[in-house]
Amino acid sequence: MLILMKTGATAQQVDAVARFILDAGLKLEKSNGGAVTFSVSQNGARGKVAEDDVLKLPGVARIAHIKTPYKLSSREFQKADTVVQVGEVKIGAGFCIIAGPCSFEDREQALKIARAVKKSGVHLMRGGIYKPRTSPFSFQGLRERGVALLEELKRETGLSFVTEAVDEKSFDLLEPHADMLQIGARNMQNFELLKRASRSKKPILLKRGMSATLDELLMAADYVLSGGNMQVVLCERGIKTFTTHSRNTLDISAVPALKHLSHLPVIVDPSHATGDSRFVPAMALAIAASGSDGVMVEVHDDPAHALSDGEQALTLEAFAKLAPRLEAVARTSRG
Amino acid sequence: MLILMKTGATAQQVDAVARFILDAGLKLEKSNGGAVTFSVSQNGARGKVAEDDVLKLPGVARIAHIKTPYKLSSREFQKADTVVQVGEVKIGAGFCIIAGPCSFEDREQALKIARAVKKSGVHLMRGGIYKPRTSPFSFQGLRERGVALLEELKRETGLSFVTEAVDEKSFDLLEPHADMLQIGARNMQNFELLKRASRSKKPILLKRGMSATLDELLMAADYVLSGGNMQVVLCERGIKTFTTHSRNTLDISAVPALKHLSHLPVIVDPSHATGDSRFVPAMALAIAASGSDGVMVEVHDDPAHALSDGEQALTLEAFAKLAPRLEAVARTSRG
Amino acid sequence: MLILMKTGATAQQVDAVARFILDAGLKLEKSNGGAVTFSVSQNGARGKVAEDDVLKLPGVARIAHIKTPYKLSSREFQKADTVVQVGEVKIGAGFCIIAGPCSFEDREQALKIARAVKKSGVHLMRGGIYKPRTSPFSFQGLRERGVALLEELKRETGLSFVTEAVDEKSFDLLEPHADMLQIGARNMQNFELLKRASRSKKPILLKRGMSATLDELLMAADYVLSGGNMQVVLCERGIKTFTTHSRNTLDISAVPALKHLSHLPVIVDPSHATGDSRFVPAMALAIAASGSDGVMVEVHDDPAHALSDGEQALTLEAFAKLAPRLEAVARTSRG
Amino acid sequence: MLILMKTGATAQQVDAVARFILDAGLKLEKSNGGAVTFSVSQNGARGKVAEDDVLKLPGVARIAHIKTPYKLSSREFQKADTVVQVGEVKIGAGFCIIAGPCSFEDREQALKIARAVKKSGVHLMRGGIYKPRTSPFSFQGLRERGVALLEELKRETGLSFVTEAVDEKSFDLLEPHADMLQIGARNMQNFELLKRASRSKKPILLKRGMSATLDELLMAADYVLSGGNMQVVLCERGIKTFTTHSRNTLDISAVPALKHLSHLPVIVDPSHATGDSRFVPAMALAIAASGSDGVMVEVHDDPAHALSDGEQALTLEAFAKLAPRLEAVARTSRG
Repeated sequence: MLILMKTGATAQQVDAVARFILDAGLKLEKSNGGAVTFSVSQNGARGKVAEDDVLKLPGVARIAHIKTPYKLSSREFQKADTVVQVGEVKIGAGFCIIAGPCSFEDREQALKIARAVKKSGVHLMRGGIYKPRTSPFSFQGLRERGVALLEELKRETGLSFVTEAVDEKSFDLLEPHADMLQIGARNMQNFELLKRASRSKKPILLKRGMSATLDELLMAADYVLSGGNMQVVLCERGIKTFTTHSRNTLDISAVPALKHLSHLPVIVDPSHATGDSRFVPAMALAIAASGSDGVMVEVHDDPAHALSDGEQALTLEAFAKLAPRLEAVARTSRG
Repeated sequence: MLILMKTGATAQQVDAVARFILDAGLKLEKSNGGAVTFSVSQNGARGKVAEDDVLKLPGVARIAHIKTPYKLSSREFQKADTVVQVGEVKIGAGFCIIAGPCSFEDREQALKIARAVKKSGVHLMRGGIYKPRTSPFSFQGLRERGVALLEELKRETGLSFVTEAVDEKSFDLLEPHADMLQIGARNMQNFELLKRASRSKKPILLKRGMSATLDELLMAADYVLSGGNMQVVLCERGIKTFTTHSRNTLDISAVPALKHLSHLPVIVDPSHATGDSRFVPAMALAIAASGSDGVMVEVHDDPAHALSDGEQALTLEAFAKLAPRLEAVARTSRG
Repeated sequence: MLILMKTGATAQQVDAVARFILDAGLKLEKSNGGAVTFSVSQNGARGKVAEDDVLKLPGVARIAHIKTPYKLSSREFQKADTVVQVGEVKIGAGFCIIAGPCSFEDREQALKIARAVKKSGVHLMRGGIYKPRTSPFSFQGLRERGVALLEELKRETGLSFVTEAVDEKSFDLLEPHADMLQIGARNMQNFELLKRASRSKKPILLKRGMSATLDELLMAADYVLSGGNMQVVLCERGIKTFTTHSRNTLDISAVPALKHLSHLPVIVDPSHATGDSRFVPAMALAIAASGSDGVMVEVHDDPAHALSDGEQALTLEAFAKLAPRLEAVARTSRG
Repeated sequence: MLILMKTGATAQQVDAVARFILDAGLKLEKSNGGAVTFSVSQNGARGKVAEDDVLKLPGVARIAHIKTPYKLSSREFQKADTVVQVGEVKIGAGFCIIAGPCSFEDREQALKIARAVKKSGVHLMRGGIYKPRTSPFSFQGLRERGVALLEELKRETGLSFVTEAVDEKSFDLLEPHADMLQIGARNMQNFELLKRASRSKKPILLKRGMSATLDELLMAADYVLSGGNMQVVLCERGIKTFTTHSRNTLDISAVPALKHLSHLPVIVDPSHATGDSRFVPAMALAIAASGSDGVMVEVHDDPAHALSDGEQALTLEAFAKLAPRLEAVARTSRG
């Protein structure tokens, strides 16, 4: 049994509910993000509780019974599709194209790419300011210096921006400036970061870990939802398998499966999935036809000299050609 | 160095070439299918040979130097796309839709499905007569009884048929009746069966093994090509990974990667890849947009009572709705 | 319900049982190896049958109800450990060391290695005569020429030999000469070859496919057992994963898991699992301590010049040092 | 080229080195943990620098050239085995047994288990205070309340303790009390946490991520080493594969491979690797024979009622029987 507290429930109300449950001889776990959800277990418990009595307690919003291991992100919990609003863009209502460089490297590069993708009709822009890198000896992003740049790019282009937070500190710093915050694949089970995201009012882009099952991805989403932040978009970005022709394996069947299991919007990143710009256009077209709510691709004005992930970035010209084909295929496949 | 013999080269000519190479102090391996290809290694060899002298030997067709581990199937060996002709259908020139039941179960079922998929505009029909089954206690196909049925289906519908051979014996039996012979995923490295296929005049549909890299798939194709049968279509059908939401993981990036590495046509089977008919339409649409040369889907008139793989088969009605959408998406994505 | 026929049951008796079941309105599948096992399904069947009546039919040996997907290989079917006799060696009763080259290359090499491993105290010798090779342009084994050599090695050393059959033809040829026949990893689901093995009186070494679950391995064993050949040894030899430090990933936990699920003996091959002779001794020691019934390692007198798999073969000297350590660790771990 | 600064190098010295490199027209990245390491790239750089001139700069300790993607953790960087001292235990010099519960649940449970494993001869004790859990609705550990308990356990048993930090905050809290801090598998690429660990004087137990290659594990270790904390122990704990008989796949070949690639000690955790207490003893014995520097197993006084991971915990009795067998096998295998 899940007990969902109202968003504005007071600490006293939360405590009163907990006491009521424990007094009845039941066990409980409390989600500790911004809002509060109790998970009440009757396994091996001595007592019982009447749901009607719980619903009468002040601050209680709702009771739910969900059989899957993930709860709040499940279709069982909410039938209707969630639509996530980022600036003026609605993710989950139409096909959304997100593009931008792996990392912002400097002002000139960032502005040049931003103007180009805007002209190509992108709905939302991406760009890394904090970069989680496999080696400590690789470029780690502009970091603190990048935040001011983000504001300039927003003013200049009018676009909304998604960028990655790598820990609570960078989340704090980016939150006022980014329109959407990304939790990267390597941090999908960084539960302290997920709890921080659950206390935010900004929408969250949650990337699937490279060895995460869909259950695990949806339980990670539950960390954000259970704290009261319902604005979560899931992102498939390739999984680790034995294959070697692509850096990861794009698990495109995750799209219909996630749409089936969850009410959250689903987008796909073919750039990290393949790691190879030669394969990105074909994969982006496949994604557009798959029922995905969007695609996120990496572009760069000079991929050969990019400070990170150049081999997977499309040139500005290639992206300009691809974008209208993506729109056309998405339209035709829904038709 | 590869030495390719002419298709009609005599045993004496083949022996003469082998002797010439060995006399020069080089090592060699001979492909032992229908035609002959020599692979000559200079590694650790004592001698050398002038290519011009080899080319003058009777029966020698061509010399090639290929750096990849797969040879005859590589783009390096042949730049132009191979088009495989099956009846009146050209695989590799336009988007090809193949459909049919996992197994033919009896005459009525087979005829009913054949008429339905013909009406839906299918280009080629599939259907299992010999079934490789994981357990010895599962239905193993109509086997010998199925061959006469195949001829009736062909007369009745005018369609061409692809069906699977599971060993040399069933290959012999099916070869005169099938329009294309399938080597299944579990037999991708059944090298004796591949050698048998290499001696056939019928086109071969070679499915990727569920743990095969693209290199291994292309080397398996080399077994068929090196014996003189150049009519090979590759088929991606899902790989084994840690995921559990689909029976296998559809590796859709294999499509652009194989088209890049090889001149052979590539199709995809979303039914075995996902094992779940709920996800097949979305995946088939993605395949149509991915640059694949075709799609092969399982359909059944009564999936709930199918003798094999019912959970992944589309109903006849679902397929009738899907087929025109596949055509439309394939057209739009190429546009 | 499984109905096991006696080994000497006549065709008429088999037919009579089948007719009895079908007349009762039940569905059935018949294993088609040497002996006969019926699998009777009551799913969706119209009728019922009394087990006592079935047991009274001539030729019926036993009825069993097994819940796992694998049947005859399960501990549920047979509680006591199976011991497989190969020459004078009992696999499944003590720790068994098997060694030999990947391929026999010529008489001198084979004799030299055979004498050396005999001196090192090996219990059984391995050596490839038919080699399934990924590329058609690689050495495919001595093939027909190797059979006479096998007889000479047996006379010379008094050892028993296990060697691989790659299809029904090579099985026929090797069966009179080999003491144990191996079905390789790539052929684990070559069901026609498994049926051939089921009709043999020789013990079978069945290697796990590189992407096979334990269920699939045990169902492959069922193909052999259901035809009446109960002398099967299972062999773990590494699975395909994302790792790159070893050619495959040695799944050592398959040992206790298989011993738990099945009554069949289990051995492990660290040479194919790692593909790297530097890691083979440590892995062989781990195998000896794991409860495995044996280990199978590749040795070569000159690994650097081996015609196949040289990089994973131990030198004769390294093996001579390793063998007594394996015995000591196996003893201590059981102690 | 790596430039390693002395541990006590001043900020001015660090800046001076950076300026010297940049003035020479080269690119550089600075590790930002406690100590400083520069990675200097000549790729596409305009200039050059003489190593002798760099070595003369104040604060520079050493220059190194390492070809592998991981640097400070490689055998190339340091030939001799690193020995990590935890209390009085030396990891990397003899076989080390670590045991304890998944989570400390309360004072009585913790004391009971601690006394039992001490009596069984354990060298070091483990126990979770902060628990990274897949679902927000699962027990998350005693957290702040657990720290005082840790001090009591240390006083009571005289044992040293390793426990997991899940973010910078919990690292700060645990650092004064734990003898060794664990970075869990899900946090192996939580780079901000690794940087925090690099600034600690306490030894670090770094668990391999479930989809991490050995290169990635060693680059994660580089994050800790490059900040000046050289006391790192690597821990294999199972990887994600297609198999289902164990929760993860114990990649035991990682032991000899890591010992070959790196100078850091390597231990293995069979409890998380298998997720099944029935298979833990066999796997622990295999680990003891594999050349591993130690084993870490989960034990619980009442596995059936554990708040986390009960199905993989050994009972106190089973562990008491296993420990001396592990010692015996480790001794015999080193022989």
